[in-house]
Amino acid sequence: MEFNESYFAKHIAPISGSAIRDIFKLLGKPGMISFAGGNPSNAALEPQVIGPIAKEVIEGIGAPILQYGASEGFIPLKESAHRYLLDSGVPCKESEILPTEGSTQGMDLLLKALIDPGDVVLVEDPTFLGALQAMKTYHAKIVAVKSDENGILPDELEKAMKEYHPKLAYIIPTFQNPTGVTLNAERRRMIAHLASKYGVIVAEDDPYHDLRYTGENLPTIKSFDEDGWVVYLASFSKIISPGMRVGTMVVSFPELMRKCVIGKQSSDLHCPLMTQAIVDAYLRKGLLPEHLTRIRAGYKAQLDAMLKGFEAFPKGTQLIKPEGGLFVWAALPEGMNATQLLSTAVENNVAYVPGTHFYPEGGHHNTLRLNFSNSPVDKINEGMEKLAKIFNN
Amino acid sequence: MEFNESYFAKHIAPISGSAIRDIFKLLGKPGMISFAGGNPSNAALEPQVIGPIAKEVIEGIGAPILQYGASEGFIPLKESAHRYLLDSGVPCKESEILPTEGSTQGMDLLLKALIDPGDVVLVEDPTFLGALQAMKTYHAKIVAVKSDENGILPDELEKAMKEYHPKLAYIIPTFQNPTGVTLNAERRRMIAHLASKYGVIVAEDDPYHDLRYTGENLPTIKSFDEDGWVVYLASFSKIISPGMRVGTMVVSFPELMRKCVIGKQSSDLHCPLMTQAIVDAYLRKGLLPEHLTRIRAGYKAQLDAMLKGFEAFPKGTQLIKPEGGLFVWAALPEGMNATQLLSTAVENNVAYVPGTHFYPEGGHHNTLRLNFSNSPVDKINEGMEKLAKIFNN
Repeated sequence: MEFNESYFAKHIAPISGSAIRDIFKLLGKPGMISFAGGNPSNAALEPQVIGPIAKEVIEGIGAPILQYGASEGFIPLKESAHRYLLDSGVPCKESEILPTEGSTQGMDLLLKALIDPGDVVLVEDPTFLGALQAMKTYHAKIVAVKSDENGILPDELEKAMKEYHPKLAYIIPTFQNPTGVTLNAERRRMIAHLASKYGVIVAEDDPYHDLRYTGENLPTIKSFDEDGWVVYLASFSKIISPGMRVGTMVVSFPELMRKCVIGKQSSDLHCPLMTQAIVDAYLRKGLLPEHLTRIRAGYKAQLDAMLKGFEAFPKGTQLIKPEGGLFVWAALPEGMNATQLLSTAVENNVAYVPGTHFYPEGGHHNTLRLNFSNSPVDKINEGMEKLAKIFNN
Repeated sequence: MEFNESYFAKHIAPISGSAIRDIFKLLGKPGMISFAGGNPSNAALEPQVIGPIAKEVIEGIGAPILQYGASEGFIPLKESAHRYLLDSGVPCKESEILPTEGSTQGMDLLLKALIDPGDVVLVEDPTFLGALQAMKTYHAKIVAVKSDENGILPDELEKAMKEYHPKLAYIIPTFQNPTGVTLNAERRRMIAHLASKYGVIVAEDDPYHDLRYTGENLPTIKSFDEDGWVVYLASFSKIISPGMRVGTMVVSFPELMRKCVIGKQSSDLHCPLMTQAIVDAYLRKGLLPEHLTRIRAGYKAQLDAMLKGFEAFPKGTQLIKPEGGLFVWAALPEGMNATQLLSTAVENNVAYVPGTHFYPEGGHHNTLRLNFSNSPVDKINEGMEKLAKIFNN
């Protein structure tokens, strides 16, 4: 017999993989300036702090840290994440918290619990392509809802809820990936209300919450959630370490939490205890606030440099100036094609992600997403000059 | 709107969770002697070795160990796992290796890649209940194939392959969970042949491979695989640490490997780099062979104590004496009910897993699985005496 495409599950057969992660493979080229990923700055990572903490928790806790753990999570982390979430304006009980392998797994477990092939998921337009790929893996029908510079439009969201009876709506409210847009407070309140009115689970994916460089923090959608329809996804990837893969999900309906735990039992049994214990110790030692102050200052300088670089871009380029996060979103003048120009950019040792990948229905080839966190200021200046030259050519 | 059962995906709605993991919750009771789990001995775990290694790799590799990594895995681990697999009699190329969160995730990724609702998966009867739950999560049709004291019967397997056209067969060839049975060499060869003849992927789940206390190592099914139909699942959980959640899967068909990687992109993006790097360093330092010699000696003494304890069990109790692994399987005399007797056992501070949970179609209430690795010899003696008393009552 010969192995061929017909063996694959129907939902996964057409998926060819994350465009971003394929672009990543080009980035190993020496001298490449990459605005493509979503990596934190290496300067924002603390191996000299985390190394000793790792040794301390492993030797301190001893054998139990190397044993099997509970699918429901490492209890000390649930306690410290609880305090962190309360401080972040996410009202919840400790029993509503499930540690996950980054928010990625939180979204996967939610899809596994809820989505039958053909079930509708509402998303912002554009949205995070990793989430789109996860939805496709479960054969969800993805419906994009119009957004503007203040985030997803509640009227449009309500219309889509009425028309499509979705099970789930996926929203990145703060410094959205890819656009950098922040959903305003009034819309957050309205979305929580709509979720409950129409019986739609809202996945509030908020990994950039702590990365605000200007302006005031806004209340989470979850803070307006009276009945439990909002699932909050928090991640320590952008603020402590993505390589440790530690996030948490907050699930208020106990039956839904139970299904997420069941999904986790067969996905990975539990998150590694070691990484959970390290994040717990980091939080308990009170290291986060000062660390955030330091990395925000660095990221603000990088963002400012990137925004300055846009001044040399073609006349008519539109960009959204974010108040935080890791990305700047831009639209080149109509008729220009950022998707095609990527290969020229990569030849010139500079990379970005074409915006088309973030639109569920493609198109929008004049848009692009630029990451500033992963390049020091001098490289940002150099890379933006290169891009301006290519785009003006 | 009210949240209710109707929201759940059809496949996950009826799953109430792993019976084993629910039994685990009873085990916190002080004084409990647990033969229920599958935990390695705490004495077989090495926090004083792993702690310094963790510090060393984190500080040594620096920021990149805390950054995002490739879904395809941490390259140094792929190299050292490759050498480990070759030494274990698993012929493969490094490019065929995907690090996973234990074998649990390997199985999940394989199911995600292959199984549409209703697709048939063949399993041994009985088999590992965690795998059964994972299959149910993907709404697979599970068909049990008769096994005897030398493992699954190739004739029966062939008959089932002809009749059901399965996509996948799941086999634990060595010191099977739950029975402790080892598939003999001739049947291993035949199964590889049948996989290729009928075009069925065979998942060879081999986590107890290194835990042989008597007798000779057998060739893996994978070693007879000429065309690539056998996927080998290896785990470091039972030999280094389950809490780190590090395993590898060996996938020879490149298209299938690609789908597993795509599944992994949305499951957890990648395994934590830290845990991958620690296992890599552990293997490179050459610590495994001596560690295995030490833990095998300990486990053999525990197994011998447990086998001795059976002498006081009711006349007519049948047991399978394993040559390795972590479990002893027994059948009480017909008419006795190990499922019902569990509550009496737990009241008397001793626990096991009723065998019924391992049968896809239930029944077999006179059977039970006893783990010996997680209790020291004196506790094994004490617990077996208690069980003998309960079962003789």
